[in-house]
Amino acid sequence: MTADPTLPMLTLREEIRRWLAEDLGHGDITTSLVVDPATLGVAEIVAQESGVLCGLPVAMAVFQELDATLTWEACAPEGSRVEPRQAVARLTGRLSSILSAERLALNLLQRLSGIATLTRAFVEAVAGTGVAILDTRKTTPGMRLLEKYAVRIGGGRNHRFGLFDGILIKDNHIRAAGGVTQAVRRAKCAAPHPLVVEVEVTTLEELEEALAAGADWILLDNMDLDTMREAVRRVAGRAKIEASGGVTLERVRAIAETGVDAISVGALTHSARALDLSLEIVSLEPR
Amino acid sequence: MTADPTLPMLTLREEIRRWLAEDLGHGDITTSLVVDPATLGVAEIVAQESGVLCGLPVAMAVFQELDATLTWEACAPEGSRVEPRQAVARLTGRLSSILSAERLALNLLQRLSGIATLTRAFVEAVAGTGVAILDTRKTTPGMRLLEKYAVRIGGGRNHRFGLFDGILIKDNHIRAAGGVTQAVRRAKCAAPHPLVVEVEVTTLEELEEALAAGADWILLDNMDLDTMREAVRRVAGRAKIEASGGVTLERVRAIAETGVDAISVGALTHSARALDLSLEIVSLEPR
Amino acid sequence: MTADPTLPMLTLREEIRRWLAEDLGHGDITTSLVVDPATLGVAEIVAQESGVLCGLPVAMAVFQELDATLTWEACAPEGSRVEPRQAVARLTGRLSSILSAERLALNLLQRLSGIATLTRAFVEAVAGTGVAILDTRKTTPGMRLLEKYAVRIGGGRNHRFGLFDGILIKDNHIRAAGGVTQAVRRAKCAAPHPLVVEVEVTTLEELEEALAAGADWILLDNMDLDTMREAVRRVAGRAKIEASGGVTLERVRAIAETGVDAISVGALTHSARALDLSLEIVSLEPR
Amino acid sequence: MTADPTLPMLTLREEIRRWLAEDLGHGDITTSLVVDPATLGVAEIVAQESGVLCGLPVAMAVFQELDATLTWEACAPEGSRVEPRQAVARLTGRLSSILSAERLALNLLQRLSGIATLTRAFVEAVAGTGVAILDTRKTTPGMRLLEKYAVRIGGGRNHRFGLFDGILIKDNHIRAAGGVTQAVRRAKCAAPHPLVVEVEVTTLEELEEALAAGADWILLDNMDLDTMREAVRRVAGRAKIEASGGVTLERVRAIAETGVDAISVGALTHSARALDLSLEIVSLEPR
Amino acid sequence: MTADPTLPMLTLREEIRRWLAEDLGHGDITTSLVVDPATLGVAEIVAQESGVLCGLPVAMAVFQELDATLTWEACAPEGSRVEPRQAVARLTGRLSSILSAERLALNLLQRLSGIATLTRAFVEAVAGTGVAILDTRKTTPGMRLLEKYAVRIGGGRNHRFGLFDGILIKDNHIRAAGGVTQAVRRAKCAAPHPLVVEVEVTTLEELEEALAAGADWILLDNMDLDTMREAVRRVAGRAKIEASGGVTLERVRAIAETGVDAISVGALTHSARALDLSLEIVSLEPR
Amino acid sequence: MTADPTLPMLTLREEIRRWLAEDLGHGDITTSLVVDPATLGVAEIVAQESGVLCGLPVAMAVFQELDATLTWEACAPEGSRVEPRQAVARLTGRLSSILSAERLALNLLQRLSGIATLTRAFVEAVAGTGVAILDTRKTTPGMRLLEKYAVRIGGGRNHRFGLFDGILIKDNHIRAAGGVTQAVRRAKCAAPHPLVVEVEVTTLEELEEALAAGADWILLDNMDLDTMREAVRRVAGRAKIEASGGVTLERVRAIAETGVDAISVGALTHSARALDLSLEIVSLEPR
Repeated sequence: MTADPTLPMLTLREEIRRWLAEDLGHGDITTSLVVDPATLGVAEIVAQESGVLCGLPVAMAVFQELDATLTWEACAPEGSRVEPRQAVARLTGRLSSILSAERLALNLLQRLSGIATLTRAFVEAVAGTGVAILDTRKTTPGMRLLEKYAVRIGGGRNHRFGLFDGILIKDNHIRAAGGVTQAVRRAKCAAPHPLVVEVEVTTLEELEEALAAGADWILLDNMDLDTMREAVRRVAGRAKIEASGGVTLERVRAIAETGVDAISVGALTHSARALDLSLEIVSLEPR
Repeated sequence: MTADPTLPMLTLREEIRRWLAEDLGHGDITTSLVVDPATLGVAEIVAQESGVLCGLPVAMAVFQELDATLTWEACAPEGSRVEPRQAVARLTGRLSSILSAERLALNLLQRLSGIATLTRAFVEAVAGTGVAILDTRKTTPGMRLLEKYAVRIGGGRNHRFGLFDGILIKDNHIRAAGGVTQAVRRAKCAAPHPLVVEVEVTTLEELEEALAAGADWILLDNMDLDTMREAVRRVAGRAKIEASGGVTLERVRAIAETGVDAISVGALTHSARALDLSLEIVSLEPR
Repeated sequence: MTADPTLPMLTLREEIRRWLAEDLGHGDITTSLVVDPATLGVAEIVAQESGVLCGLPVAMAVFQELDATLTWEACAPEGSRVEPRQAVARLTGRLSSILSAERLALNLLQRLSGIATLTRAFVEAVAGTGVAILDTRKTTPGMRLLEKYAVRIGGGRNHRFGLFDGILIKDNHIRAAGGVTQAVRRAKCAAPHPLVVEVEVTTLEELEEALAAGADWILLDNMDLDTMREAVRRVAGRAKIEASGGVTLERVRAIAETGVDAISVGALTHSARALDLSLEIVSLEPR
Repeated sequence: MTADPTLPMLTLREEIRRWLAEDLGHGDITTSLVVDPATLGVAEIVAQESGVLCGLPVAMAVFQELDATLTWEACAPEGSRVEPRQAVARLTGRLSSILSAERLALNLLQRLSGIATLTRAFVEAVAGTGVAILDTRKTTPGMRLLEKYAVRIGGGRNHRFGLFDGILIKDNHIRAAGGVTQAVRRAKCAAPHPLVVEVEVTTLEELEEALAAGADWILLDNMDLDTMREAVRRVAGRAKIEASGGVTLERVRAIAETGVDAISVGALTHSARALDLSLEIVSLEPR
Repeated sequence: MTADPTLPMLTLREEIRRWLAEDLGHGDITTSLVVDPATLGVAEIVAQESGVLCGLPVAMAVFQELDATLTWEACAPEGSRVEPRQAVARLTGRLSSILSAERLALNLLQRLSGIATLTRAFVEAVAGTGVAILDTRKTTPGMRLLEKYAVRIGGGRNHRFGLFDGILIKDNHIRAAGGVTQAVRRAKCAAPHPLVVEVEVTTLEELEEALAAGADWILLDNMDLDTMREAVRRVAGRAKIEASGGVTLERVRAIAETGVDAISVGALTHSARALDLSLEIVSLEPR
Repeated sequence: MTADPTLPMLTLREEIRRWLAEDLGHGDITTSLVVDPATLGVAEIVAQESGVLCGLPVAMAVFQELDATLTWEACAPEGSRVEPRQAVARLTGRLSSILSAERLALNLLQRLSGIATLTRAFVEAVAGTGVAILDTRKTTPGMRLLEKYAVRIGGGRNHRFGLFDGILIKDNHIRAAGGVTQAVRRAKCAAPHPLVVEVEVTTLEELEEALAAGADWILLDNMDLDTMREAVRRVAGRAKIEASGGVTLERVRAIAETGVDAISVGALTHSARALDLSLEIVSLEPR
């Protein structure tokens, strides 16, 4: 699996400069006092536990944005499974630059690998069912593009990126519009081309309303398995079905087997545990 | 406890605009299609579990940055403990604005309250020992100021904000400098005024070197309790002592009782679980 | 018709400041030399020809971003038809501010009203057919959101806002993928939720391929009316159909009557003529 | 004619990144789904009608800002006249990058070539008279520098770039100052060094006032040919003369022959028709 | 003398935020630790020596950008002469905000007042001669607009604001062009409307060349008084004359009396001494 | 002495672009009119007086940010003493680029070299005493990092970079807190790790209070030499001592000999005279 071409490097460089500035401010005082700027070295990023590796191009960009003369060599492909003590990348160049960028690079790699690892677990749990595992908008402010990239690397599929690229009518919208029927109809009649209309329902009655009003996708929110199965039966192919709410690794296969088309999991981005990685100096070469 | 005056609202507004843009892009399509822009409403942010509330001024700023006519009323003080179904804030105004800003405001409130809640637990675990609970640089890129604010609200004390406002000589610096003695001496002789020098040690031998070289603070990294006690004994007040590495809620009091001055906990920011909060419409008033 | 709530005022203010800076640079020298800063005045923006008015909230923001003390009163609703010599808005306040912001405000109002006027003409030409008039990505760099807003005000519907919120497989994509079938299949199997797949075809053979591969929308590119009618017949409701290419006011109704669902018109944004408007001082009051 | 060295590439790169972001957002979904990122190709930008080519360095910068590995070769010089089906530039490299940047590059090239083409027509219409063709501030917000560059490439001369680099007293300024004499005198006595004073007049009486007050340039606004001739006679070399208002290709030579020094034409930037250009894949090389 | 309306407040606010961020970073630690955020107070800015006051609107903007609830009252008009111990402005509000913004506000006020004071001295030294005192481009990077504003407040006149709003051919340009004649001719034949051409000469021979080539302004660089007088005689009104180089307060009147039109003085901005001002708490009111 | 590795090039490039934009705006008109863009040349930056050279990497970045093809060769090391007519750097490449960037590069080099020169004088005046020469926050808004860099190059040591990286309780804080004791105690009990507490005192009574409250550093403000000596005696090593106020080159050694640890000098940054440097064309090569 190669790095996803949609990784948005264009704006990413600017964000990386902002993040570097957050950590470096007016300079890395310790390194400038203690490490001779002429010292060259080789360092490796090493996995401390097993998981799905994600974020190599981002980490590389962090180091090279700080010091364009650093050499980066990936030792494992983006999206591959790594094992404890496995080196995932190797850096060569000015040691002071490597140390100054270390923390930011690790913070990013660990978080993205954590998301990819968790996503892979969900994807494997539904293997063979044809059901897509989707992310949500419960991402870290400022990190949505990277976190959704990690979901793709993990084998998940992205839900909408924001309020601007998909129509999803939720309970509060329904209440404000005065009912499912009105909400879906308003959306259908003026939706930008070629967006489809998805509506969240919590009961079978709402489901029937949504179908009658012409919804393209139905989001079953927090339903139990029996109700989901009944919902799938009633929809009978007239719309696509997404399930969400309380989706755990233990429960996801059962949900998938109800016949829904997709399952969205907020935990992919808001509850993934960081994968443990560290940076170790391999050799030093005082110049 | 009132809102901390050091919450950096100056740059925060700019970040909030960036985060709103991340979610809103060219517009909240669903809301604009479904909700009449003239509809006014009242909504409440409600806790779904118990914890320490943090981020009210940030959430307020999110709503008002999007729509300056919204009225915000806090129902619980920043830093207070909240219980399930307790309303923490109440919003009045254009319903469409409330719905468009909801997700970002909740994402921030939930994360910051989660950090404050976890910090409070650590602080309470060491109550009476006089030991300070410190955060680390293992924060989310772009969110460090807010996450460190949440640590303060939770009762913790901030460690340095970046590489620029504190000197902390770590294992890689020691290796690059050729030993603890050299590293500490270099730092002492040119440190910017009035920064002190802290050095990380992993053995009692390194500890002796660090003391001899004049370190102001010693960071005991990943030591067991017995070694920590011996370290405290040897230091004998000649330097201040910080402990870190593998600090859990179960173990933190025992560490504190070894006699160290401070304990830093990466988990405060990288492993805090989001506190569950939601936004609910209380009433609607079509205009 | 009231102002569209999706007008993205959030980022617009920043753009307006950039545009003001483009024109004002280090200051409006003429006004500062010639006009007493204490002079107050009333000015009106007056239509010089008939058309559909668009951009009032934008023009107001231009004036108030430069001088928050200026008072703005709209004299005609956004989206209404105006006639020669009709005042559309009235400004009161510091005359020097009004004059410094005049050119930018007029440049924006004239361009947006021009687009709304042209769009209205296309929409009226297909009245009763139920066919949607769509815009394209042939917009002015940096002005897409405003130009698409003007299309909505004129009664058109927006096509995708960029490469990120819709899938449209064009001739070059087909060539790169090795054929219509392969291109559509690749897109269907990994499209982000819940985007649908649209594909551009130029022949009836490609149309059949697209249908067989499961395209949701078919874009008939530059076909003559007979071929379009045949295409509609063959699709037989299995997909939605958009027509584009060489769409003029004279020809648009005939295209609509072939039975397509939507017609996209590049000219709406790249060839609309600016509507003639001017700013006139109504009265002066030296303070 | 080589590319103008004053093309402001410094800030242009930043604007190009903003414009790319406007179109690409979080990624070019279609291309990333359909086109293998390893596919290399050659594409040409081809003129579809005749005109004056302008914007090659800008288009090149668009492609290379997105992907620095793309190779660009211009096939016709900036400012040269091109004919239908003539290739004007050739791109080699990653096909996915070429397709993602295509629309922005074309939008810019077409608009700038349109302006250069129209300017060239005006310049040729007054050939031999020694009269300069000038642009105005009626440019697209955010595009002024590029549009004025296109005017220079077309053979025109730039009027002031904004309110900050030239003094031009217009009707509203005159009214605010209480007359031509007062306005011109105020400007003369405090103008920044070494700016000259230009004043717009609509009658011969105002012209006499302007001359008496010491205006350096007189702008004859919307006068008929006879009045212009009389104005030139009265000025008798005591000031320079610019004409503006209702200047068409048909009428511009007659205006030039009245003896004025310069003619400003708003249409150069607000009414130029885009030159038709397209991007065509020449060959593909799957890697 | 009232505040100059051309003070560019539009972009200034953004710069002030950047400057506040430079000093405040992640917060004013001392104030947040030591000063109760509820304490209100009154403070005055007091002159410690005599000079020309400049920068009041800028200082006010600094305080209010940090805390919009602070009240500012100017006690002396912008551009007035102040004496030791004279209060120039009075601030009321949250004491912590006043202390956090104090240093930046004073740094600006002191520098701008220093420039205005020095400019006033030069202007008074040439009083009655009708010669204009001009500034140069030898300003502090990032502060040019404010420094040139201070020159105006001091009674000087601005030279061009950058390389973009005036043509000034200097020795290096002449060398590159191959002589004065060629340089001036090239500039005259394509200068943007309506800029005039100024050329720097160091000898009377170059002066003659410049006149013959049609220069509008001649800059006499580093000439002695006799040569200047001879230069004025030879020009005989055919061009305007600026003198520069080694202009001191002692020598400026003699230069003015040679008959030149303007004298530019780099020292106004690069050598002005800061005017001594301080901020003093007048009263405290714990809330 | 080599260039300091903490020179913050990361954000500097962005500032340089802003400063270039300040001077270049929409283009260097004179150079574009007068200098053939194909002309290559060699130019040298030459010292016109003796001093300590500082800013070479900054000046190089200015030229290369404008034109990446320019070649820069330093002829003297950063921090070295230069003599009149000594070339300090040599530039080769497009002459037009060299001329367009000249003024900004010189403005920076001259200011930074001036600061380094003055700092060196203070450092040499206290040679052998072991006392550190410190800078202050009295820097130019927007230039603090560079000015503090120049202090380091001159041999001084940096005081805190802003309000965020050091605790310094000044007279106004003491007044607001209700006395030295209260102020110091509040700071000690919640200071971020591992910042120390410094307090400014003006009398020996305040000094005693500060010591009793546990201050880590005492700033003796504007004391006479005898009082300083007495203060040193009383402190007796219980805290470190900084002196400030009215520190001149004449008086600094006597202050150092009182036994204080550090002396801060506002004049280093707010009163350093620019070092005279100029750019001279060495040879031309028309292409």
